[in-house]
Amino acid sequence: MDLLKDFEAGKRPALARAISIVENQRTGFLDLLNRLYPRIGRAHRIGITGPPGAGKSTLTAALIAHYRSRGETVGVIAVDPTSPFTGGALLGDRIRMNDIAMDEGVFIRSMATRGSLGGLALTTKEVADVMDAFGFDRIIVETVGVGQSELDIAAAADTTVVVLVPESGDGIQAMKAGLMEAADLFVINKSDRPGADRLARDISTMLHFRSGQMLRNVPAHHGVDMKRIRARARGELLEPEPGADGAVAAWEIPVLKTIAETGEGVDALAAALERHRDWLNESGELSRRRRQRLTERVREEVARSVQRSVWVDRGGEAELERALPELEAGRLTPYEVAARILSG
Amino acid sequence: MDLLKDFEAGKRPALARAISIVENQRTGFLDLLNRLYPRIGRAHRIGITGPPGAGKSTLTAALIAHYRSRGETVGVIAVDPTSPFTGGALLGDRIRMNDIAMDEGVFIRSMATRGSLGGLALTTKEVADVMDAFGFDRIIVETVGVGQSELDIAAAADTTVVVLVPESGDGIQAMKAGLMEAADLFVINKSDRPGADRLARDISTMLHFRSGQMLRNVPAHHGVDMKRIRARARGELLEPEPGADGAVAAWEIPVLKTIAETGEGVDALAAALERHRDWLNESGELSRRRRQRLTERVREEVARSVQRSVWVDRGGEAELERALPELEAGRLTPYEVAARILSG
Repeated sequence: MDLLKDFEAGKRPALARAISIVENQRTGFLDLLNRLYPRIGRAHRIGITGPPGAGKSTLTAALIAHYRSRGETVGVIAVDPTSPFTGGALLGDRIRMNDIAMDEGVFIRSMATRGSLGGLALTTKEVADVMDAFGFDRIIVETVGVGQSELDIAAAADTTVVVLVPESGDGIQAMKAGLMEAADLFVINKSDRPGADRLARDISTMLHFRSGQMLRNVPAHHGVDMKRIRARARGELLEPEPGADGAVAAWEIPVLKTIAETGEGVDALAAALERHRDWLNESGELSRRRRQRLTERVREEVARSVQRSVWVDRGGEAELERALPELEAGRLTPYEVAARILSG
Repeated sequence: MDLLKDFEAGKRPALARAISIVENQRTGFLDLLNRLYPRIGRAHRIGITGPPGAGKSTLTAALIAHYRSRGETVGVIAVDPTSPFTGGALLGDRIRMNDIAMDEGVFIRSMATRGSLGGLALTTKEVADVMDAFGFDRIIVETVGVGQSELDIAAAADTTVVVLVPESGDGIQAMKAGLMEAADLFVINKSDRPGADRLARDISTMLHFRSGQMLRNVPAHHGVDMKRIRARARGELLEPEPGADGAVAAWEIPVLKTIAETGEGVDALAAALERHRDWLNESGELSRRRRQRLTERVREEVARSVQRSVWVDRGGEAELERALPELEAGRLTPYEVAARILSG
């Protein structure tokens, strides 16, 4: 396979082609993923999500600059929002990002959200695998954190950053559920605008309340500690509290402030990302997450493979098409049609 | 089948048992759904969704009172939120709803969101089918519109109501994408609080902007008509604009204001729901949606049936368990394990 040879030699056109094969599930994509598989697992995968207009792309650009100045290479996967509203804004950001893309140490790929054959979440992870196998040090996956699927994509990273802006404050009640679950780090971007401190305090209080309530990753004696809440709300990087049994402590989700446009706070964000990566390694959380992801990947691949087999290879689509008039007339139930397709 | 006989005789214990069988996918659940299938299609299915604290349960209770006063029967499916945060508040609402449940013309069922075997969305639709077959005039499905799956459930209704509160205003940018797609009607509840008018105006503008931009269900000559935007923002029920070719016009999504606690605006909401139901019938949209849902149901049933076959009947879970050590050690790829499970 010439492609694989070129890929292993670090040639960018081979990377681009490999990604296209995987993204569009062209013939041989599973074979390719299988061959690349032994090479993955080295990159730090960072998910960046949040509402439209939070400055995710600008923050991504700032992080790229940070990593490049340290000689690290960066792969970026930008997942298009499903809403046509936000298409315009993101397009603007992306053009700015194209300047960065001239750098040989950076590779940017946009993913279409519609028409992804195997499900967007799975395909995005597989494109990240390809970048990982190519040897990028950091892989940043940027998604709009509105729908659950977009959140799932970001949450599939090693470290998930939820980016908000001061104006997000009043909306946090509404959107918190999914975002709170997904976040390893919070960033309040455009933090020179009014309301940043209040939002930081609200998030910190909510995080503290949650961890206290749910006793999740938190020692049992953990109570409401306003000093820590306030310190976190000031954007201070707190030392983790010691675990009750002397083990590596729980991860305390930081709330950071940035102004991505000027680069303010980006070094602190990168430091927090590094701390989280270290914590993942030391706490054993990385192994736990990895195991969970491996079994999830097997399930996703089984589902995709079966879907293809039933609907494409074994003519399920044609069978459904044929049954549709009887289905509509009520002469067949959906269950009868399903059974027919499965026996076909 | 005694159950079926009792069910057809309108006995409530038979209804409760039928729902349990379907919800938990007990032996014979597919057979039961198949037998009930010819009896469904008569009820008006109303989805009610929105952020936590918007007063969805109170609004549901007010709608129930409205329909009951007209002699109609109502089935309610309350889908628990996934977040433990909101569990408390909803529980409070539910207790209040239990008073209504003493009424023989009302049947309320809570659905657990975790551990739903066939996927919550599919199971909820099937429980609604059972209620429909039992003969309820209205079926209200209430979900928290935070995650995509909850939205999907609400959007599976004939008419989907998105409930907001004045405070939701600033959050609308963030959560709009999914909610905007799902809504057939907007309700601003607790509209005596400040900000209701501004939110109504924002939603109206956004709706108008969207329909104008996307030309979705909207005549081509449709431009920005501030008079209609303002009228809609006042909660007026506008006559639909005539279609360009004299056909039944597009549905113009109303923005209504209610105070569910006092019942204010609930009659207008019920009227708008009725208008939407009529529009579904007259425009042919009902047939279109029904066709789409039938094929979707076939696909969902195929997927569920295959999942059960692979993972349960053919021992996929055990195979995955066995392969896990090799998977973790990197001696097998997820693709190899998936292939092994599928050939097993």
